[in-house]
Amino acid sequence: MNQTVEFRNRPKIIGSYSIVGPKEGAGPFGSYFDYVMKNDLFGEKTYELAERKMFEQAVTGAIESAGLTASQINLMLAGDLLNQIISSSFTARDFSLPYLGIFGACSTMAETLAVGAMMVNGGHFGNILCATGSHFSTAERQFRFPLELGNQRVPTSQWTVTAAGASVLSLEGKGPEITMATFGKVVDFGIVDVNNMGAAMAPAAAETIFTHFNETGRKPTDYDLIVTGDLGKLGAEILVDLLEDKGIKLGPNYSDCGHSYFTREQDTMCGGSGCGASASVLNGYIIKKLKKRELKRVLFVPTGALMSTTASQQGESIPGISHAIVIEAGGK
Amino acid sequence: MNQTVEFRNRPKIIGSYSIVGPKEGAGPFGSYFDYVMKNDLFGEKTYELAERKMFEQAVTGAIESAGLTASQINLMLAGDLLNQIISSSFTARDFSLPYLGIFGACSTMAETLAVGAMMVNGGHFGNILCATGSHFSTAERQFRFPLELGNQRVPTSQWTVTAAGASVLSLEGKGPEITMATFGKVVDFGIVDVNNMGAAMAPAAAETIFTHFNETGRKPTDYDLIVTGDLGKLGAEILVDLLEDKGIKLGPNYSDCGHSYFTREQDTMCGGSGCGASASVLNGYIIKKLKKRELKRVLFVPTGALMSTTASQQGESIPGISHAIVIEAGGK
Repeated sequence: MNQTVEFRNRPKIIGSYSIVGPKEGAGPFGSYFDYVMKNDLFGEKTYELAERKMFEQAVTGAIESAGLTASQINLMLAGDLLNQIISSSFTARDFSLPYLGIFGACSTMAETLAVGAMMVNGGHFGNILCATGSHFSTAERQFRFPLELGNQRVPTSQWTVTAAGASVLSLEGKGPEITMATFGKVVDFGIVDVNNMGAAMAPAAAETIFTHFNETGRKPTDYDLIVTGDLGKLGAEILVDLLEDKGIKLGPNYSDCGHSYFTREQDTMCGGSGCGASASVLNGYIIKKLKKRELKRVLFVPTGALMSTTASQQGESIPGISHAIVIEAGGK
Repeated sequence: MNQTVEFRNRPKIIGSYSIVGPKEGAGPFGSYFDYVMKNDLFGEKTYELAERKMFEQAVTGAIESAGLTASQINLMLAGDLLNQIISSSFTARDFSLPYLGIFGACSTMAETLAVGAMMVNGGHFGNILCATGSHFSTAERQFRFPLELGNQRVPTSQWTVTAAGASVLSLEGKGPEITMATFGKVVDFGIVDVNNMGAAMAPAAAETIFTHFNETGRKPTDYDLIVTGDLGKLGAEILVDLLEDKGIKLGPNYSDCGHSYFTREQDTMCGGSGCGASASVLNGYIIKKLKKRELKRVLFVPTGALMSTTASQQGESIPGISHAIVIEAGGK
């Protein structure tokens, strides 16, 4: 196996927490999230400060749910969408934790868990915290348009969710187990439209999922859930097609966090997006289902669009990346 | 040891490459760099494209110097200063390598090597490529002012170097060995001046170096070189003072890549800075000295200023981070 790593010591997710904005809390996963904010400013003066406060609450919540205190965390792995990943870095500062900054755009939850699982598996660190999040209002104004402009949303657009999620990994304690990770390549099919992220990221997801099945000899039916991060309605359809062309039928156990994040009435066009989408669904919904053993083995495959305003203004296309991790109910 | 990890299998740096701009090539390390560009645009239309081309040459050079081809690299760990680390991500795309994006500002060379060493040490991947770089003209316009304004430079300012460096890690082959890493915390002493990076980063370097000596029981004389990344003249002085206050005398074996990067006549005020400073000195100068056994054991401690224009505009101070790795001549 070239891109896939197996974790013999089965690192456990011993703590997890999800926090979302009001619109997100009103969606189909609403009852699974640990905390729903009353408004997007969360008592702060700017949306960036609100994003950070949300991030900090996710970190606190995950540590508490693991029955630990911040001083028992050996390392924090985190990233986010803001330039210089400030939500992550300032949170690490405020908790005074040893810290590695990660950038994988919306694939960050898988990237931090994959690297963290490797470090815990190797016995290098006891408890590792993995976190990410996104905020609609900070992401839109950084990557697209100031919200005040009131730009019309196109049919392929997605709604960057206001949400954060965090997990604590350890070899000690109880929880779902991370048993494998497949590290993805950067794939670029030449999409240049920042309002069509699903199409930009689907080829990367296809590449990583294909590699995962190819290297492990597994097939889609070996998982009771295969879930991408934020491909949205259109991106998920493209992924299914791309994999069918390679001879893989994802089947009914496939779904996408972004596509399922909002109801049709919530009017988000192709669905949710952002680091927070897969992070909150993982830490809110999937981990709870694994703990109840209503899910046994999940392939979690968040995707990231590596877009940048500078690169776009200079005529570049938007490459995508995707990492996959296998999470099992374990125990019993 | 809490923040320090020891690598029992001693991952080796089997390939390395450094490339710099003309001003950098005219400095004291000039003869050690593998390639000196004739001009900062490097035949490209924009400075961002020049940065990427330089990055790609560093990657190609490191892989060739390891006697490998790109298809034999199992994973690329990289980061840079540009928003969404586009130099790294687009390079990973162009080489079609499995990729983990890292963000540690100017501490990136140590962050990638520390994480890479852990992965190689654990036997998870065979050959890992670590890379970073920076470009004067892209960094200045992103973080400070458009160069066209011709702003006056203040006495505490540093010159972001145009340089990139890359290393290949493996358990097989020959080369200097990475034997330890100390992962740092985010430290913030309240500096708000983007033209005083040395003062912003020195406390993080002090914290990481103190932790390293404290956890390992070593002392400065156990190293024949202790080298920070880009504290510059002022930052290096602050570091020496901060550590003296904690009872540690760094002594004559201490130096800073940024401080030593240019001659006084090159008029860079406090010296060089940027991810490329420590990356090019490591891959150009230090590794060559280790191979010749003119250096035996080096403590390499790049520092990063986690600044962001958004955070600065909202009144935030600039936190710093620093990671340390121990590199030994090994062999014989």
